[in-house]
This record gives sequence, C-alpha cells and structure tokens, in this order.
Amino acid sequence: MSTSQTQAGPSLLATDLYQLTMAQAYLRHGVAGTPAQFDVFFRSLPSYGEHQAGYAVAAGLEGLLEYLAEARLASDDEALLRAMRSSSGAPLFDDTFVAWLRAQRGFADVTLRAVPEGRVVHPGTPIAVVEAPLAVAQLLETAVLNQLNYPTLIATRAARLRHAAGGRPLLEFGMRRGHGCAVDAGARAALIGGVDASSNTGASLRVGVDPRGTHAHSFIQAFTALGGDELAAFRAYADVYPDDCLLLLDTVDTLGSGLPNAITVFEELRSRGHEPRGVRLDSGDLAHLALRVAHDLDAAGFDRTVITLSNQLDELTIWQIRQQIRDEAPGVGVSADSVLERLVYGVGTRLITSHGAPALDGVYKLVAVERDATWVPSVKRSDSPEKATLPGPKALHRVYDARGMATADLITLADERVDPSTPHTLHHPSDERSRTLQPTEVSSIEALLQSAWRGGRATNASPGIRELRARREADEARLDAGVRRLRNPHVYHVSVSERLRQLLREAT
Amino acid sequence: MSTSQTQAGPSLLATDLYQLTMAQAYLRHGVAGTPAQFDVFFRSLPSYGEHQAGYAVAAGLEGLLEYLAEARLASDDEALLRAMRSSSGAPLFDDTFVAWLRAQRGFADVTLRAVPEGRVVHPGTPIAVVEAPLAVAQLLETAVLNQLNYPTLIATRAARLRHAAGGRPLLEFGMRRGHGCAVDAGARAALIGGVDASSNTGASLRVGVDPRGTHAHSFIQAFTALGGDELAAFRAYADVYPDDCLLLLDTVDTLGSGLPNAITVFEELRSRGHEPRGVRLDSGDLAHLALRVAHDLDAAGFDRTVITLSNQLDELTIWQIRQQIRDEAPGVGVSADSVLERLVYGVGTRLITSHGAPALDGVYKLVAVERDATWVPSVKRSDSPEKATLPGPKALHRVYDARGMATADLITLADERVDPSTPHTLHHPSDERSRTLQPTEVSSIEALLQSAWRGGRATNASPGIRELRARREADEARLDAGVRRLRNPHVYHVSVSERLRQLLREAT
Repeated sequence: MSTSQTQAGPSLLATDLYQLTMAQAYLRHGVAGTPAQFDVFFRSLPSYGEHQAGYAVAAGLEGLLEYLAEARLASDDEALLRAMRSSSGAPLFDDTFVAWLRAQRGFADVTLRAVPEGRVVHPGTPIAVVEAPLAVAQLLETAVLNQLNYPTLIATRAARLRHAAGGRPLLEFGMRRGHGCAVDAGARAALIGGVDASSNTGASLRVGVDPRGTHAHSFIQAFTALGGDELAAFRAYADVYPDDCLLLLDTVDTLGSGLPNAITVFEELRSRGHEPRGVRLDSGDLAHLALRVAHDLDAAGFDRTVITLSNQLDELTIWQIRQQIRDEAPGVGVSADSVLERLVYGVGTRLITSHGAPALDGVYKLVAVERDATWVPSVKRSDSPEKATLPGPKALHRVYDARGMATADLITLADERVDPSTPHTLHHPSDERSRTLQPTEVSSIEALLQSAWRGGRATNASPGIRELRARREADEARLDAGVRRLRNPHVYHVSVSERLRQLLREAT
Repeated sequence: MSTSQTQAGPSLLATDLYQLTMAQAYLRHGVAGTPAQFDVFFRSLPSYGEHQAGYAVAAGLEGLLEYLAEARLASDDEALLRAMRSSSGAPLFDDTFVAWLRAQRGFADVTLRAVPEGRVVHPGTPIAVVEAPLAVAQLLETAVLNQLNYPTLIATRAARLRHAAGGRPLLEFGMRRGHGCAVDAGARAALIGGVDASSNTGASLRVGVDPRGTHAHSFIQAFTALGGDELAAFRAYADVYPDDCLLLLDTVDTLGSGLPNAITVFEELRSRGHEPRGVRLDSGDLAHLALRVAHDLDAAGFDRTVITLSNQLDELTIWQIRQQIRDEAPGVGVSADSVLERLVYGVGTRLITSHGAPALDGVYKLVAVERDATWVPSVKRSDSPEKATLPGPKALHRVYDARGMATADLITLADERVDPSTPHTLHHPSDERSRTLQPTEVSSIEALLQSAWRGGRATNASPGIRELRARREADEARLDAGVRRLRNPHVYHVSVSERLRQLLREAT
C-alpha cells in the first residue's frame, strides 16, 4: 500500500487500535509487567455448507515466528502514533507509552508454545499459548490471530482436497482471485495441507517447491490474431518447452480443434525424441471431456500423458467428476481407472479463499495472570456454557488407543502428570459426560504443545515443507476414516481432565 | 514469509508460473514486443446466497500503480529463477529471458486505462485496459487481477453494509480473521466502500483516517484476576481515556453488572467534567440488549452515548436488528428512533473476508494485438455465448437519463464518437434485444476509463480516501433504488454499440 509496508520487517502498528490503548492503560496502572497467559483456540471447524471439516491442520507458525523476530515501531510509525489525538485534542498516547512500544523489539520476554505446523488439530484445544508480560501479550493478540487463522484454514481446506483427489496430483492455481498479498501464505499453507505444487512462483520457490503451470488461452489468441492459428501456437509452445509440453485444449473447440492439434504436435515432439507431458481442460463438462480426450490420446499412442482439469474445482466437484468418469467410461470405450490415473487437478478460487467458510474462528483468550508468584486462572463467563473459556495454564495431550489411532485430545492443567500406565477419566468440556480409559486401552499419550519461541528466538529450526507434509500425513493416518469423511464427519473427542473440569466448575 | 518479501518493492516472481513461461515463448518467437491490449472485467456480481449485489465499487488501482512503480526482479529472485529446471534437467529459463525480466523496471512501455477507484462498476464492462508489448502485458496479468479483485470485492461489500447501517457509523473490525497481510488492502477498500473507520491502526493511519476501537474482555479479566473487579477495570480505563471512554458490557453479565458499573463510571467521569463516549455489546441478543441498555442510560441521564454493536454482523443481521428494535421499543418504553440514532456497527469477519462470496471473478483477456500498424481484434470463442470476450480496443461510457440517473453503461469501440445529441441504439451484449435512446432521453454521457499509467508513471496524483468516498456516494446517488436493493436487486443495463455488436458477431 505504501512505503511503510516495504520497510524491513512488519510494523507494530499493524494491529487493532484497542491493543495499543489497552497496553497504555496497563502501563499507567502498573500492571503492564504482570506475567500473563493467553490461549489460542478455534471454537468450531469450518462448515462449507454442503460439506464439513472433521479436523483441521495447523499452519502459520513460521509466519508468526518471523513476525516476533522482525516486528518493530519504525520511525514513521512513531510519528503517526504521536499525531493521534483524543476527543479533547490531547495526544492519545503519551511519551512513556511510545518509548515502551519502541522498546518492543525481538520479544525476549515472550514464551510461545504451539502445536507444530502440519499437525492435525481440533476445536476447543489450545493450539498456541503465549506467556508474556500482560501488556506485551495483549499487544500480540492481533498478530498471533492474523498469522495463524488464515494458514490453518487453508491447510485444512487443502487436506480435504487432497482426500478428494484420491492420490492424484493437486495444484494450487488461486493467486489471481486470492486476497491480495495473503496468497503467498495461502500457497505455503496449501502445500502443507496437501497440494503438490502451486502456480505462485515466488511463494513456491521460497519454500523450495517447484511451481507448476501450463499456458493461458491468450497464448493461442495472440498467435491467431497475428495471423497464425491454434496449431502454430501449440508448435511455438512445444518448440520452447519440448520436455514440459502441456497444452490447453479449449480455446477454440476442445474436441474439434484443440485435441487433434495437440496430437499433431505431440507426434512431432516424439519424432524429435521428446515425450509430451499432457493437456489441460478448463471449461465444459470436464469429466466427459476427460474421457473423450483420453480415448483419442490412447488411440494416438499417448496413453501416459496427463489430463489436467481446472475451472472452479472443489472437493465435491472433484468427487463427482471421479464418479462420472466411472459411470461413463464404458460408453466411451476406455478404462475408468486408466483415465482417473492420468488426471491432475488444478484448484483455484475455492481453495485460496476457502469458499463457503472463508475464516477460521480462532480466538485469543486470557487464561491466567501471575499474582504472588502463583498463576491465577482467569475465566470469561458467558451466557452460553459452550463459549466459556477454559481457565488456567494448560497442557494438551493426544491419546492413542490400542490400535495406535488417535482417540481423543485431552486438555489438562499444565502441572498435571499424564501417565499412560494409569486409568484416565476424560470429561466432556461442557456437559456431564465422561469416559474412563484403562491402561490397556491406551498405547501412548503425546504432548502436543511444543516450545516455539523463548528468550528472543525461535526454539527450533524451521522444518521444510516436506517434513510438514509428512507430519500431516502421519497424523491423518492415525485418524479414523469417519473423522476424515468429507460430509457429516464423525466428531473427534476433545476432553478435559478432572482437575480442569473442577476448575471450570468453580470459575463459572 | 521470508526476507525476500520485505525487500524494497514487490518481486516480479510474485506471479503465476505460466506468465513467465509464456513470456519466454513470446520472446523466442519474436512476438514479445508486439503491442497488445488486455481488458479486465468481472463476469458476475457477488451473490452472497441470501442476498446479492446489484453493483460493485472499483478499488485497488492505487495498489496496482504502486506495483508498477516498484516491482522488479531482485538478485535473490534471479538466483531462484535460474535454478529452475525443465524435465530434461536443462535450465527452464535462458539468459535472454532472465535479462529481459531483469530489465522490467518501471514499466515505461505500459499504458493503463482504468475506471477510477470509488466509481460504481458493473459486470462485463472493461474496468481496466492494459496496453503494452505482448510479453509485458502477459507478465502483468496475475498482478493486475490480484491487486484489483480483492479490493473491489471488499469495497462492494462495505457499500452494502453502508446501505444496511442507514447512515449510522460503521466500523471495520476484521483484522484478526482476515486473510493475512491482505487485511491492509481490505481496510482501505472498506473505507472507500463506506465504513467510517477501521480498527486496523497501521492501514488507517497510512490513509489518513483515525483508527477506532474500545477495549477487549481480557482487560476486565486481567483486573479481576489481579484482585479487582469489572468496576475497577472500567475505572482504570476511564482514568486513562476520560474523553474517549467506551466500555464493553458483556464480560461478566451485560445488564446485571456491565451496565450498572458503566453508569457508575460515567457518573464519576461527568462529575470530573468529562462526557463518556458510550458502550459496546459483543454477545447475546444485540437488538434487545441495545433497547435495555438505552433505557437505563437514558434514565441515568446519558442519552447521547453511543451503543456499539459487534459479533458476526452482516447486512441482513444489521437489517434485522434495526427492525427488531422498531418492533420491541414500545415494550421497553423507549423511542426506537432514539435508539437507532445512537447505534454504531462494528463489522469483522463477514466484511473483511466477504463471507458468502469471498472472491470477485475478475479476468484479464486479450482483446487485440497490433499487426501492420492496425489493432487486430482477438476473441476467445466459447461454448457459452455469455462467456465470449468482447473483442477489440474499447471505450466505456455511462449514459445518464433525463433525470440525471445512470441508465446504462455502454461499451463501444475505442474510436467511436459518442455524442449525447444523437440517438443511440444500445444492444444487449449476448442476445438480440436492443433499445434506442433519443437525445431528449439522455442528459449526459460520461467516459469512464481514465488514463492511470503512462510513460513509467502514474498519470494522476493519488486521491485521498475522502475523495474516493465522495465519488462512490455521488455514483450511488445516481443509481436507481432497485439497483441498490440488498436482495434480488434490479439488473443494471450493460450494453454494446452497434459496431461492437457487429464485430462480436463476425468473430464468433
């Protein structure tokens, strides 16, 4: 938007105004330095209307750690802040506060624990915990939520598309329709969540994944308007990219012109010792066209080229395309499996914007302040019991059953010992239901919150995208199929310990 | 995401891969320098499901002009690009292309015409036209769409909320739930579209609009956990902000505790010579609570304080809250008008993400290339006639009727003379309907596409937010009420001239 966005590092003014006014009020009242803990959690999984998520995939932590390392009050920010006036015309922020804000560089007094990126996460559980002086922790609220909500939303959506695409390559094509500069964080989150590549060149190269793409209709239009035709355009593309030749068939007439011209160019390529990569379909009845295209490519001896599908794809559309191919294949005289095994899916708008559920409802709630060297739990009472915040410093555990499958996430107080060799009673967080797991029913219990930031630096080296993808795949393999179902998924259990249940009862 | 994002200016690699591969192919085939024109238009207005837009508000041009001024290939980008490999293991991009891309600084060979920000725009009309050497124009596609689509979407959404809020203050609170760094462009677009202020401090201050905010529940929780209570927290806030005191009532019990405590603090403020600003409600039945709160504030002599409402507001919710207040006011013993006139609406997630319609379907289509010193129209044929691109270099006009109201947008060829003193036949772009306007029926005809970038610089100084808001208001005042309706709006007419209609017929 302006030069202040392109300075080194994000600005501390990139926040909601009330974080600044509250921080100043804490300072004036001598409580700014009081140690405080805030939990980050989301209340519900995305519902896309016709289908619903049964789990989410954590993402965005890397961006948050970069924010902690780089955010500061730049000198032009300071001038903007000092110019703000109260209703009475006096400066809204005083010198003490401006000096305090200027001193917030590097966040050495912040301790962040978080569920690592790529892990499967569930509603109502702390996915990150910020421990810091009260005013600092308050100041961080907007940045923490802004950094975590959107990537987690997109990683979750990508995991669903990954499931729908049934093991076939899945590409992220949404940069033009995504929300401004968020498309870079979106592409990275989509890669964590399960797409194989993105068309977003810069974002892909920065995380070490090759971007992917074909060509646009305009490439053919340009050669045509200059006196050539579709065949000339295809030949021009094949000439420059003989080993990566993927041709878009639907600029003129998919079956009448695009496909025969592509086969001509593929034959020319092969005669010169190159194998074509494949074709793309971007309009029309994609399932039917894929069958017809596969039939003719087979007949011409190109039975290994891919068929990339794009145009408003989402989970249910991919699902239906696959089903329609199974239904129609016999009539077209091709094997459904052979067609399905050559498909590639390019997903744009509906992934990068999470169409149907474009926000994760992640929140950041005060759970404890330190008083007389003791953590005092804090609770926000509410008219709706299911909206009450779980009080106190907490830990999060994943309980695996005798099969090694995740059976529940268990939230405890931070100082509780969780031992798989003793029975555990798991309580529903807001009603009276509970169940007790015997040691024979539990194969392991895993602590999910890991140290992420302490003493002014990230605790761990940033893992690569491949490691994050492997984490997600490992977690998904330990989820029951019902939880992974696209429609009406089984509800995964999130439980609280007896002690936390008791603390919640006392507080509300 | 990484240091390459915080370098000076955006990277030319922030694009879809296929723009780069096509540009290289144009270079190799000697057509990269051929003058070309691409139109930007959106095919349909956002439909939010239960309600639908009847017009859009253009935004995002300033970001695009900054992109043109600042984008370049940084040295670390160049290394990433050079490391890319084709399937055969050879470099994907050759030295000639890398040198060409490195030379793209300042875009002196680009001419951009655009409908200015803040203007009302309609589907199917060119809202921006890029004229540039073919490879340059192709390279710009992703950036142009990424810069224009999201801001136009959000300005449009804000205009609808502006309409629903009936002249009362409207605030943008969505930073935490918006899509990453896009929230800054979103806040600016929301200001153009009709919100009065945003909580996003940095984005607000950069465009010269004071940010707005109150305090969070955590402020009260913190004072409570430290041994105080809600009243102590309210007093602490009032003490620091005596002339800007706006208190959040629903942390403990809205009517049982929040409201009486706020009145106590307001009385203390007044006794010290300060007038309180108001209260905020963030949960429960906002309409009913607003009435009850207004009643008690009136009784206590605070009949001019505002009542700010927040919590998942959108157009229809605001509409219903206003209706419910009218219905319930007599029973509570207050005047509905007096309550409605003190309301302030804080809108978060559903504005910044455009929930229900999170993307504008803006596209960028080749319409002409120059050949033998003449513009040759280009058309993308399609199976769906309504999806055919209008060919040729074009102009866009708004026709005002005898009342001075906008009656149609008319797309012509660029070299057509449009004279309000002669009859005009307006053709439907995709069917046979037409209507002829006599000079007596036309008060004026306005050209909408303005020069925005030429010779490596923006043509006009950037207007301020207030001017952009005034443009939008003036345009809305010349729209019939039916077009502005929230549900099932009347369809505004977009027409083509006889010559353009003829060209389209010949091309398809």
